[in-house]
Amino acid sequence: MRFLSDNTASACPEMLAAMAAANSGRVPAYGADEWTSRLDRCFSEFFGTEVRAFVVTTGTAANALSLATLSPPYGAIFAHEEAHIVTDECGAPGFYTGGAQLVMLPGEHGRISPERLRAALAAHPVSLHTVQAAVLSLTQATEAGTAYRRGDLTELAEAAHARGMKVHMDGTRLANVIAFLDCHPGDITWRSGVDVLSFGATKNGALAAEAVVFFDRSLVKDFELQRKRAGHLLSKSRYAAIQLLAYIEGGLWLRNAQRTNRLAQRIAAAARGALLHPVEANELFLHLGSDGRQRLRAQGFEFEDWGAEARGDARFVVSWDQPEEDVQALCAALERL
Amino acid sequence: MRFLSDNTASACPEMLAAMAAANSGRVPAYGADEWTSRLDRCFSEFFGTEVRAFVVTTGTAANALSLATLSPPYGAIFAHEEAHIVTDECGAPGFYTGGAQLVMLPGEHGRISPERLRAALAAHPVSLHTVQAAVLSLTQATEAGTAYRRGDLTELAEAAHARGMKVHMDGTRLANVIAFLDCHPGDITWRSGVDVLSFGATKNGALAAEAVVFFDRSLVKDFELQRKRAGHLLSKSRYAAIQLLAYIEGGLWLRNAQRTNRLAQRIAAAARGALLHPVEANELFLHLGSDGRQRLRAQGFEFEDWGAEARGDARFVVSWDQPEEDVQALCAALERL
Amino acid sequence: MRFLSDNTASACPEMLAAMAAANSGRVPAYGADEWTSRLDRCFSEFFGTEVRAFVVTTGTAANALSLATLSPPYGAIFAHEEAHIVTDECGAPGFYTGGAQLVMLPGEHGRISPERLRAALAAHPVSLHTVQAAVLSLTQATEAGTAYRRGDLTELAEAAHARGMKVHMDGTRLANVIAFLDCHPGDITWRSGVDVLSFGATKNGALAAEAVVFFDRSLVKDFELQRKRAGHLLSKSRYAAIQLLAYIEGGLWLRNAQRTNRLAQRIAAAARGALLHPVEANELFLHLGSDGRQRLRAQGFEFEDWGAEARGDARFVVSWDQPEEDVQALCAALERL
Amino acid sequence: MRFLSDNTASACPEMLAAMAAANSGRVPAYGADEWTSRLDRCFSEFFGTEVRAFVVTTGTAANALSLATLSPPYGAIFAHEEAHIVTDECGAPGFYTGGAQLVMLPGEHGRISPERLRAALAAHPVSLHTVQAAVLSLTQATEAGTAYRRGDLTELAEAAHARGMKVHMDGTRLANVIAFLDCHPGDITWRSGVDVLSFGATKNGALAAEAVVFFDRSLVKDFELQRKRAGHLLSKSRYAAIQLLAYIEGGLWLRNAQRTNRLAQRIAAAARGALLHPVEANELFLHLGSDGRQRLRAQGFEFEDWGAEARGDARFVVSWDQPEEDVQALCAALERL
Repeated sequence: MRFLSDNTASACPEMLAAMAAANSGRVPAYGADEWTSRLDRCFSEFFGTEVRAFVVTTGTAANALSLATLSPPYGAIFAHEEAHIVTDECGAPGFYTGGAQLVMLPGEHGRISPERLRAALAAHPVSLHTVQAAVLSLTQATEAGTAYRRGDLTELAEAAHARGMKVHMDGTRLANVIAFLDCHPGDITWRSGVDVLSFGATKNGALAAEAVVFFDRSLVKDFELQRKRAGHLLSKSRYAAIQLLAYIEGGLWLRNAQRTNRLAQRIAAAARGALLHPVEANELFLHLGSDGRQRLRAQGFEFEDWGAEARGDARFVVSWDQPEEDVQALCAALERL
Repeated sequence: MRFLSDNTASACPEMLAAMAAANSGRVPAYGADEWTSRLDRCFSEFFGTEVRAFVVTTGTAANALSLATLSPPYGAIFAHEEAHIVTDECGAPGFYTGGAQLVMLPGEHGRISPERLRAALAAHPVSLHTVQAAVLSLTQATEAGTAYRRGDLTELAEAAHARGMKVHMDGTRLANVIAFLDCHPGDITWRSGVDVLSFGATKNGALAAEAVVFFDRSLVKDFELQRKRAGHLLSKSRYAAIQLLAYIEGGLWLRNAQRTNRLAQRIAAAARGALLHPVEANELFLHLGSDGRQRLRAQGFEFEDWGAEARGDARFVVSWDQPEEDVQALCAALERL
Repeated sequence: MRFLSDNTASACPEMLAAMAAANSGRVPAYGADEWTSRLDRCFSEFFGTEVRAFVVTTGTAANALSLATLSPPYGAIFAHEEAHIVTDECGAPGFYTGGAQLVMLPGEHGRISPERLRAALAAHPVSLHTVQAAVLSLTQATEAGTAYRRGDLTELAEAAHARGMKVHMDGTRLANVIAFLDCHPGDITWRSGVDVLSFGATKNGALAAEAVVFFDRSLVKDFELQRKRAGHLLSKSRYAAIQLLAYIEGGLWLRNAQRTNRLAQRIAAAARGALLHPVEANELFLHLGSDGRQRLRAQGFEFEDWGAEARGDARFVVSWDQPEEDVQALCAALERL
Repeated sequence: MRFLSDNTASACPEMLAAMAAANSGRVPAYGADEWTSRLDRCFSEFFGTEVRAFVVTTGTAANALSLATLSPPYGAIFAHEEAHIVTDECGAPGFYTGGAQLVMLPGEHGRISPERLRAALAAHPVSLHTVQAAVLSLTQATEAGTAYRRGDLTELAEAAHARGMKVHMDGTRLANVIAFLDCHPGDITWRSGVDVLSFGATKNGALAAEAVVFFDRSLVKDFELQRKRAGHLLSKSRYAAIQLLAYIEGGLWLRNAQRTNRLAQRIAAAARGALLHPVEANELFLHLGSDGRQRLRAQGFEFEDWGAEARGDARFVVSWDQPEEDVQALCAALERL
């Protein structure tokens, strides 16, 4: 019973079916096909505002290309110290921006607080000698499986914008947050001040499809050239675009997110005493102790150890295709602990 | 009737079927799945030697990552002046290598001649002040739709190796050349001195799957880190790996290449007087004149204008899924011209 | 008797004297001193228009920083195939721009002809798939020791600007050309369409001082940040700035250039039959044959072999501090050949 | 009375005299002159071991080129959060390495403690998904004007080496530490495990000269190519090399460092209660309060405000050419506070 990551999941059969349905004929390459051309409209309707949307195949590409559009090579990118761009992308932001510097901020439950950001910005000099404050990158849901609310987002974005910075959101698990907060997709993105969004679909049911969504369309500038030279412009773009269309228009984003959220809440209820963070998406961080981890593994559960070894913590992620029985078994096992 | 590019083609239904067949269960992410793990073996058998093979989603990524493995930032990459890496990748080699310089060589029918290469290398100084001769990149089939023979390849590779350079092959349409020459895949790659190969599958029937194949496995070094930081490590790697497996193990590579080669020869026969280059793969370059191009377009044929406008040349590419009727119609139209 | 390069020369004693005269007291660092602050004014008066001028210590830095200001990472920089930025800077343009591609143009006597440029630009596609035509870089004097005239410069710049490109001039030996043409410094720079100039002083008498001069001041943008992060902002900037001030205000630029030009003409007269290029600065390119080269070396002359070994050509450069006797001896030796 | 920075200082007249003494004749360019050729020997004797030494003109260049030699583009560079490479080089490490990531560590009095480093390394994963621990960069004297002792250095270097990392030292003010500890230059560098050193001379009396010193000569690899393409290879290299020779062989390094240390100690005695850090070089950090700062400025003292505005702290740096009277006046003023 594998709770290692939502990256281990399969793809929604609906997506493969949609790809198969479009699999005939010779259509214009490199995004000039009808499916890719529909992305702007599809995402504009989803978010309730005019956007530009571009498809790529990985979250790292979406994040790094977004940041390369927003930060000069001598820019500073402010992010939570546990953000994926800091810890899990092997330096992609530095590569794509030509050397921008990450400024890591601590923060409880994976969130940067507006106070912390304001203090960090105040301490970051305006000087020829320093990297220039350029981007605030926020992760939604956070790496701790929590959600930023609109109020905090707005304050954070205001602080960044006041400094002339742009706001990027890594929305790898954005669908889970929208489902959790039961809000409009625009509420926690552009209405809260987000300029550019990495919109995730792969974890939540696609094969390999993410979107870079520009709420501030003036920032698109040379994005397409940057994507092309990075090797992220697909020749047969239709198959990736179709995944995004199926995800949004077919409602898979919400169906899957609601399901994984619900299952995560069930596990949370079973593990209440061990929770390290509020459960606001499909991830759970539990204090189990070495012994607890061992006992669960002995029962066939797979999960990631988390943080310092001595702490004995663990991460469980519910995938969109996780069998109910896996969850039931895990709940039972946790209650026994 | 679209002869614009083999990039416009659909994907082989066999591939979609294979993807669907593997579409269940939670499997390790980032290439630790069973399908991705089989790639080394699959490609080793295909080429008849022990190789390392890595999957990416675009030819530009395969080329740029290969070159970044082979060239230092202050390297010189020798290539034909019409090579895809020179003209169609928006500077990807410069981006991935951190600034390596392209040295463009002319050459008839898209080929660099061994004499030309030797002269260029002799003229390229060994000096602290100059970019250092690092890589020879050859395209197979060439951008003129022609094939390098083993003899020339061997001479070219020897000249490069004698200078301490590495040999990269852009094999976007390698399958067509193997089919055309009716040779063993190893003959025109590692047995001819190729160190690293960009192995194409997308144009010839995949959705989005290319391999970087290391014949010299000592060169792999940090390839996986470079791929990761470029955002080209897929989380759900299985779907891309399956395409390569189906392509090789299912024999699609040869079936499709033989078909497009055969159709291309049929068109060549109909257009004999107009041929600008020998037809040794699935591409045809024809001198049609402005008038000829216009007449073909009026009959519903789509193709690329090629070269300087005044020359009136055109490129036709046969896709793996090109209907026979398209080809028959084109042959008839060309004979009428 | 060393005619290897004007880089071998000593520095004008007037410069060392000026540096010593300013060598007291603690003054603001990083260019906030009074000498550095005078550079804009000094160069504005020299060129007869309002400019921004920045000091760096090498020509490679001046060129690469200029190009990084003018070209995006996916830009194409058009230059003569023998330009210093192509052959002698170890890939600095690629490094500083983040991967821009050099497009090398041939041209007689080191010059790009306007026709050649127009043809190259017409052939360079406007496409998402290609590096974007961004900069024309011209060398004045050229690598063949010749001068561009205002007419050609104007045509070249117009062709570049019409394509939306910027014009960079590598003016390592600009003083020699101004002296040769006996023109106003503005005539062959901004009045001919040059946007940004690498202004050389080191070869012609400084210790280590070059200026980047922005005729189009809107292009300065982030130049100072780029210079800083490249490690080319000097903490004790006064000593470099003083060299430029002494060079311009003290008239050393003209005195030295006139002298080396005059001596070069004297050698040219003695070598008339062997000249490969018109002598329009302080460099001479001679066809001597292997035998001729050997005989001159046997008499104690040092110079560079030039071009393919078999051709038997050689380059002689007159330094600002070249003794008259060296030149007399060389003339006599050449006449004897 | 300017205590802003030792960067504001003039240059030792002995250096200008040595430059003038060598200012005749045409000598080989780009470091092939006799003075530059002596650097390896000079620094080998200074440090008591065989080294390779290269001259550059700025500390940022020395640091960034060192790091580019030691870290791959996907490397992690561990440094104190107040290190110059983190806060004052406008992203030069990211630029030169091609995107390496800085991992900032806190630490009292500007020092990283061995415990802190070991904990940070233990927490830094070994994974394909993360930047790879590559370099430990230590500043000597630290940004707090303190010195690392040999014991701590050795422990730090051992921890880094045990992880396969290299140890870089930013020795901008190394002379002050050697003078303060009254040790052999080798003791706190290679004997403590330092692999590559940025050796400062500019602040302590040169015009513009720093050395990159390789204690591990196998690391030199492509340093010279990297320096060239960065525009940091001086054509008239003799003038920079002479500064380093005069600095070392002429004993200026020690004379100047001893003097500034002594003056700094005198100020420290006068400011005892206000000291924020031990004074172990030529820098003082004082808690003065807003009012104290204002009163000192009213008396003609120039210095930097330091840290958060509200804290009311200040930095004073003694320059090698600081008049004794400046120091006497400052002492008197501080005692009056």
